Amino acid sequence: MGRRIINGVSITPLKEIPTNGGVVLHMLRADSPVFLSFGEIYFSEVKLGIIKGWKRHFEMSQNFAVPRGLIKFVLYDDRTDSPTCGLVQECILGRPDSYCLLSMPPLIWYSFACISKEEGLISNLASRMHCQVKSEQRALECPEIPYSWGEDNGI
Amino acid sequence: MGRRIINGVSITPLKEIPTNGGVVLHMLRADSPVFLSFGEIYFSEVKLGIIKGWKRHFEMSQNFAVPRGLIKFVLYDDRTDSPTCGLVQECILGRPDSYCLLSMPPLIWYSFACISKEEGLISNLASRMHCQVKSEQRALECPEIPYSWGEDNGI
Repeated sequence: MGRRIINGVSITPLKEIPTNGGVVLHMLRADSPVFLSFGEIYFSEVKLGIIKGWKRHFEMSQNFAVPRGLIKFVLYDDRTDSPTCGLVQECILGRPDSYCLLSMPPLIWYSFACISKEEGLISNLASRMHCQVKSEQRALECPEIPYSWGEDNGI
Repeated sequence: MGRRIINGVSITPLKEIPTNGGVVLHMLRADSPVFLSFGEIYFSEVKLGIIKGWKRHFEMSQNFAVPRGLIKFVLYDDRTDSPTCGLVQECILGRPDSYCLLSMPPLIWYSFACISKEEGLISNLASRMHCQVKSEQRALECPEIPYSWGEDNGI
């Protein structure tokens, strides 16, 4: 799996605080260096074997955490003015090994899939409220994005 | 279960949007009438049989949603200037029957328990960042709060 990180993307380890009745899982605080603004928070359930994407947002930044299950994200940078233009980045989020916040600026193409038996749950805190016309989608197998989701990708 | 609602508390049904790969679950948008400010978002896992509380925050408002499992919340109002002072309020949050946002002002005592076999997951969006000294706790069985968690309460 590639280790290079797309310009503007960050992966921040998050605190998991054990308590008697279950763990407390941090996600984002207003004083975090990656927090920009609050637009919306929502969740996506993802079943094993389902791949979602490709999608990108024109204006919204996104912050993803995975409190249940394991999700593999693949990101692609085709911003011509980016020092990492052309880079594909893979990362897996989930507990207990990778409970992290994936923060992503606008214009990054992304796709994701659940790679755990248990359904994955993605929490997405976006810097703006969702607006369908301010995003676009591409087919999973498209010539413009040099990545193929296949059996060798853990799905 | 009591139907009266404590002054300042609200329960708002949330959208569940089915998609091919799993459901999308709304929680809170910046233009919601119950949104005050963004302080922090975190999750609490709660195992069956565990009861947490009582606790209250002096300054922070909280917004709870339960994307996994079923959680029973009990709230108690002892604010002497409140028209519902003395009221105990119970509510159950979870899917598919009660995927709602429970919004609660400061100074309300609250406790909660998981009532599903599956671990419950509470998402809490607070209007301020968490500060231990700006909250207080009481024992579950305390003389000041007229509520007893017992076997007849679904636990």
